[in-house]
Amino acid sequence: MDAIHPRFEPDSITGRDPKENPMTLNAIPTAHASHDEHATNQGSPADASSSLDLHRTTSDMRTTRSRLGLQPQAPIVEEHDLAEQQDWWWAKVRIALREPFAEFFGTMILVLFGDGAVAQVLLSTGQKSAPGGNGFGNYQSINWGWALGVMLGIYVAGDSGAYLNPAITFTNCVLRKLPWRRFPIYLLAQFLGGFVASGIIYGNYIDGINKVEGPGIRTVPPSPTATAGIFCTYPQAFDTTAPQFADEFLASAILMFVIYALKDDSNKGQFSASGAWFPLAMFFLIFGIGACFGWQTGYAINLARDFGPRLMSYAVGYGGEVWSAGGYYFWYAPMSWCETSGSAGRRINLLVFRRVPIVAPFCGCLFGGILYDVFLYTGPDSLVNQPWFGLKDLARPKAAILERMEKHKAEGLV
Amino acid sequence: MDAIHPRFEPDSITGRDPKENPMTLNAIPTAHASHDEHATNQGSPADASSSLDLHRTTSDMRTTRSRLGLQPQAPIVEEHDLAEQQDWWWAKVRIALREPFAEFFGTMILVLFGDGAVAQVLLSTGQKSAPGGNGFGNYQSINWGWALGVMLGIYVAGDSGAYLNPAITFTNCVLRKLPWRRFPIYLLAQFLGGFVASGIIYGNYIDGINKVEGPGIRTVPPSPTATAGIFCTYPQAFDTTAPQFADEFLASAILMFVIYALKDDSNKGQFSASGAWFPLAMFFLIFGIGACFGWQTGYAINLARDFGPRLMSYAVGYGGEVWSAGGYYFWYAPMSWCETSGSAGRRINLLVFRRVPIVAPFCGCLFGGILYDVFLYTGPDSLVNQPWFGLKDLARPKAAILERMEKHKAEGLV
Amino acid sequence: MDAIHPRFEPDSITGRDPKENPMTLNAIPTAHASHDEHATNQGSPADASSSLDLHRTTSDMRTTRSRLGLQPQAPIVEEHDLAEQQDWWWAKVRIALREPFAEFFGTMILVLFGDGAVAQVLLSTGQKSAPGGNGFGNYQSINWGWALGVMLGIYVAGDSGAYLNPAITFTNCVLRKLPWRRFPIYLLAQFLGGFVASGIIYGNYIDGINKVEGPGIRTVPPSPTATAGIFCTYPQAFDTTAPQFADEFLASAILMFVIYALKDDSNKGQFSASGAWFPLAMFFLIFGIGACFGWQTGYAINLARDFGPRLMSYAVGYGGEVWSAGGYYFWYAPMSWCETSGSAGRRINLLVFRRVPIVAPFCGCLFGGILYDVFLYTGPDSLVNQPWFGLKDLARPKAAILERMEKHKAEGLV
Amino acid sequence: MDAIHPRFEPDSITGRDPKENPMTLNAIPTAHASHDEHATNQGSPADASSSLDLHRTTSDMRTTRSRLGLQPQAPIVEEHDLAEQQDWWWAKVRIALREPFAEFFGTMILVLFGDGAVAQVLLSTGQKSAPGGNGFGNYQSINWGWALGVMLGIYVAGDSGAYLNPAITFTNCVLRKLPWRRFPIYLLAQFLGGFVASGIIYGNYIDGINKVEGPGIRTVPPSPTATAGIFCTYPQAFDTTAPQFADEFLASAILMFVIYALKDDSNKGQFSASGAWFPLAMFFLIFGIGACFGWQTGYAINLARDFGPRLMSYAVGYGGEVWSAGGYYFWYAPMSWCETSGSAGRRINLLVFRRVPIVAPFCGCLFGGILYDVFLYTGPDSLVNQPWFGLKDLARPKAAILERMEKHKAEGLV
Repeated sequence: MDAIHPRFEPDSITGRDPKENPMTLNAIPTAHASHDEHATNQGSPADASSSLDLHRTTSDMRTTRSRLGLQPQAPIVEEHDLAEQQDWWWAKVRIALREPFAEFFGTMILVLFGDGAVAQVLLSTGQKSAPGGNGFGNYQSINWGWALGVMLGIYVAGDSGAYLNPAITFTNCVLRKLPWRRFPIYLLAQFLGGFVASGIIYGNYIDGINKVEGPGIRTVPPSPTATAGIFCTYPQAFDTTAPQFADEFLASAILMFVIYALKDDSNKGQFSASGAWFPLAMFFLIFGIGACFGWQTGYAINLARDFGPRLMSYAVGYGGEVWSAGGYYFWYAPMSWCETSGSAGRRINLLVFRRVPIVAPFCGCLFGGILYDVFLYTGPDSLVNQPWFGLKDLARPKAAILERMEKHKAEGLV
Repeated sequence: MDAIHPRFEPDSITGRDPKENPMTLNAIPTAHASHDEHATNQGSPADASSSLDLHRTTSDMRTTRSRLGLQPQAPIVEEHDLAEQQDWWWAKVRIALREPFAEFFGTMILVLFGDGAVAQVLLSTGQKSAPGGNGFGNYQSINWGWALGVMLGIYVAGDSGAYLNPAITFTNCVLRKLPWRRFPIYLLAQFLGGFVASGIIYGNYIDGINKVEGPGIRTVPPSPTATAGIFCTYPQAFDTTAPQFADEFLASAILMFVIYALKDDSNKGQFSASGAWFPLAMFFLIFGIGACFGWQTGYAINLARDFGPRLMSYAVGYGGEVWSAGGYYFWYAPMSWCETSGSAGRRINLLVFRRVPIVAPFCGCLFGGILYDVFLYTGPDSLVNQPWFGLKDLARPKAAILERMEKHKAEGLV
Repeated sequence: MDAIHPRFEPDSITGRDPKENPMTLNAIPTAHASHDEHATNQGSPADASSSLDLHRTTSDMRTTRSRLGLQPQAPIVEEHDLAEQQDWWWAKVRIALREPFAEFFGTMILVLFGDGAVAQVLLSTGQKSAPGGNGFGNYQSINWGWALGVMLGIYVAGDSGAYLNPAITFTNCVLRKLPWRRFPIYLLAQFLGGFVASGIIYGNYIDGINKVEGPGIRTVPPSPTATAGIFCTYPQAFDTTAPQFADEFLASAILMFVIYALKDDSNKGQFSASGAWFPLAMFFLIFGIGACFGWQTGYAINLARDFGPRLMSYAVGYGGEVWSAGGYYFWYAPMSWCETSGSAGRRINLLVFRRVPIVAPFCGCLFGGILYDVFLYTGPDSLVNQPWFGLKDLARPKAAILERMEKHKAEGLV
Repeated sequence: MDAIHPRFEPDSITGRDPKENPMTLNAIPTAHASHDEHATNQGSPADASSSLDLHRTTSDMRTTRSRLGLQPQAPIVEEHDLAEQQDWWWAKVRIALREPFAEFFGTMILVLFGDGAVAQVLLSTGQKSAPGGNGFGNYQSINWGWALGVMLGIYVAGDSGAYLNPAITFTNCVLRKLPWRRFPIYLLAQFLGGFVASGIIYGNYIDGINKVEGPGIRTVPPSPTATAGIFCTYPQAFDTTAPQFADEFLASAILMFVIYALKDDSNKGQFSASGAWFPLAMFFLIFGIGACFGWQTGYAINLARDFGPRLMSYAVGYGGEVWSAGGYYFWYAPMSWCETSGSAGRRINLLVFRRVPIVAPFCGCLFGGILYDVFLYTGPDSLVNQPWFGLKDLARPKAAILERMEKHKAEGLV
């Protein structure tokens, strides 16, 4: 679900992979460079003097991108002429919003396959006319769906870093120098990707849902014909609040811990999974989380994959139970207030906050990331790897923030 | 199911991979070049002067290939001496029709595994004497069959671009400069591959079919003993026309969208799947489409995989219902006319057109390709990436076509 | 199941991969060559002058290896000092019989996993105390077992070419210049590998077999408690002879056809599976054959995997039905003679020949290989790619054989 | 489960991979070396003169690491400044205990996924409300869980060599020159990893266990509601002692044999799995052991994966039967003594020793390793590959041990 260091962040200190760095890319002429008549427009701070004109034409785009916290220069291969692409307004938009578009479609693909697998298995449960005589898939099909959804989503979202999960973006902001300014636009793109994808799935399977529930009827677990589970997670009936939270927290922590291990080129032995192997390793990781920690709460581990579809299911008519099911699984703290307050305040509250699938992934991912960094990560970019775990900065927050922003600018990150 | 840029198209503008380009291949001496006494015959426009004699001997073949829209020079490694191979008529045919042969066998392998998996699971449903006590496979086996069929089909069809699907060939003609003249020969090869493969499957499983249906009886869903589903797709009984179309459209759009993402070296982050990883990524993509969008219509997403076997099942005696099943699922527009017209006109009509599995994949793939190009693709070769989405060319069709053909010739594509 | 060109065959004409060729290996100093004090002993014809002494010490081994049709020089990396290894008799045996040992253990691993998976699924069928409540695996587990058995067997047998299947060795002798003299020793090694592995499986699962069949009782299908299917294949009861043969023939042809495609570096597009990807691609190929063509006859496709275990099952007491089951599925031609002749001649006959799982894989693999070569292979080393499909040689067999042997010697193959 | 040669062991004789050797790493400047201002602190014996100061600052750490049998220099990429990291006490601990930490977390991930999969499948067996109508997974999910647990555990434990299994560490000490002094700290780390992980799984699934067994009730097979199988292995009821031992022995021998094949660069043909492919090949190996040899005893094959969780299950209240179940499956030799002795001595005895899952994996792994070395391994580092199988050393143990230690020191291993 994640690629910690987006390819084009010119991280001049760690700078592990020359491919991650457009300056390096420009500096090393590729084998077919001689075939390209106009390959030199990918200006970067390092060769600004030689691309002054191009700088001017792309200056407004750089400003837009900087405002969103994105890298000034969009990550596009040099053969694709950036300057030429700016002749038309849409091409400008596409370059300015490259990473958000990538996150949107990556998350969309993830949720299309994930929710699609749940829909197919749930709606065809027990169908005797299926080849094999017992429905079109079983619980393992759902493991496959989410796992390959993440894998293909990473391929689709490549350039954005392929986080596909706000909790992972968040953890990278805290621990891996990802600029905080990128968080809102990534969050929005990821949420919208999940929201749109679940709408497509609903439209696609509307006949099947009508057949299972009855025309126009839409119910939420523990209704025996409930189909709301297609869109978002509902905990097992026997589960109480603490285990629900623990389960989501644990799955998210494992997710982040293993991602950081996969990405850590200093702890790879002979087994690097930070490059081409990453999407496949993520397939196995997500499959494992589904096969091993997916029973009790349905392994949301991702706000975009749970809140987006939940809102969509509310919009298409599954009723307020999508929020209140499972003992207000959705949102914890103000529960007692919710119970007593009127339905208006209650709904607003429920629309704004969510308990387990919202709070737990953030806590879990952050914990998993910190755990990895404390025991195994040796890179200087982690907050944890600074003396006193970087907690000294809490005493002088303003100075720390300014320092960080200046450092990002110097490194060309924003 | 696809490789957008066949290796040997000397695409001098984008020219991403030196391996794609025989000129580059010739220019860069390989490690074992010194061992080859006759490795220089792979002439290309660039070094025509140095291979005049070879040019002459291969000129008739070049003409044949050009007429079919194929690249003048067949994509064969330099160690295999093209000139020597032309001493005998069959070798000439093999080189002249290299890509169509590759597409034929690639599609054949795809359908052999796909239809074979359906046959095995469907015919052995519920068999108690199987190890495990419940048949020789379940619905997931069918996902495996189609997915690995595509993967192995791509390996078999390597040199042709490995489209294996007319809708993908079509989309590449529209959006990726694949010469239109190649479309008919590829279509024919793909169709024949599916047709022949389904005939082999029928012959192989004829005893099993007789056992399930009764000797000589052949039925089409919703018959409870129907075996026609081995060969082509039949929609679920509850499904109405619009969702059938939507389902196929959606699956095809996802197919094309993800293929374009896998192939886009400008949006890969660190995760390229355009080379050696492509067949494996396609395994997961096709598995996902089967596990997530395979219930309602059986995920045809491919004329060659559905129409070829359907015609074969008609030929071996499954009756006219192979065309009319599912509310004329097969062909949409002239349905009301079909209902009223006599059976002769009806049959002709049904043999020529098909509704959902024919029309929907083309629409879906084209939509998916355009979606990717509009939001994520930055290459200049896409029609969509020209000002006004290339629609200006509609105003001057003749000039646009001529320009395109000249450009193809200049680039050595035809 | 196969690697057409063993790494160390110095095929100076096609010589695709420098890694295949020890001469090339020696010629190109590797990065750590300077660390090796004694890395130059891997003499080869090309540098014989510089390694005269070593030549002498290894001459008896070379003779032994040549007699078996093996390459004079064992395929061992240069860091492992061949000369030093010959101080002790066992090290000499190990080097002299390197490829047969590799084939033996590779086939043993293949059959251990394959027969082990069948044993576990068959013996635990329906066991309610299993996690999940329905046995320890299903038919798909068997697909996994055979597929990963082949994959891991290839890794184990690496240096031998990893054929693991006499039919594939045979086809490579006919079509890919593998010296015929290697065939007997490879056949023996493969047969013994399967024989020993099935004995291990029998010993391991003897308690389970006793539980299912009753102590000391051993039966063959169609007995309802039959466990003979653990060791070798028995056709479905409804199947007649012709489809049995066709099914095995088809599966074997597909096997060989796809292997040749995977190995063909001239038809790979961007998708090469001839190197590191080969074992994984074989996993999918064998899984597919099991999932798509495994029902009717149990996909033997390999004498070593079927005859070896069958003989073992006869030895441990499954009775003569292991040969006669399925209408003498085992051996075809002399069936009528068998029926009438006495039991002694019958048994001898049955021990020497086998029908479907013996004859069909050889026919099928050869057909699949020829099919590939006729339509897609352009290399000059295939018999099929010579004028008149090489049939002219049939007119002068003696001269053709001598020519071939001399050519092999010149290339250092024997 | 294993990586025989940890990356940073400067094995100057075989020295296969320059990446394995930090000296080589330092000698070859990487592409981005010029960006690193402080990349030269990774001193090694070879360039000690140029890093005297750094040597001094790291001397206490080297001593700690040497005492544990670890390589003096921690395996950390040169970009991560070792000297800078030692400003704070925790960073020192992290570097001093790098490999034990890696083994701890690697084994933890392995057991989290493995036990998690068993827990989910076992506790949800037959649950009708699951999508698909039959629980959240089946026996195959458990194969997936253990297989991908090992794969991801290897990624997490990268730098330690990723043994994750005391029996594999042990075999490498005997046959592959791994310093014996590392064995205790690795064993402790692996045991603790399994112990902690099973505690986490227990906490996570406590509600589900209460639901299946009844609140506070904890039972061991053959109780029909037993959940102790989540944590460690219990043999099938029909199994007697000898087959139990044989089954574990066989599975462990196959495990070690195949790992040595995967790691043997001298027997790889074209199929190397010693680098990036290793974790994936291990996935298939563990899947295969589970699918083919997992029925009778539950495939412990690993003390850390069985004894750690067994102790945890004893600690949380499953009672003394966790030790005595299956005819004292746990520990063999003093069984008759146990039966007669009082419960105090009995418990102590049972806590110290274990029969099958403790003894068998060590015997099996050692046998598998020796088998590979005798027949296929040609490297001089194996004990087996010395004249008379290295048994001569038994006559002069003290001298042999001293020689070995000196050699290790000379090679920078301790």
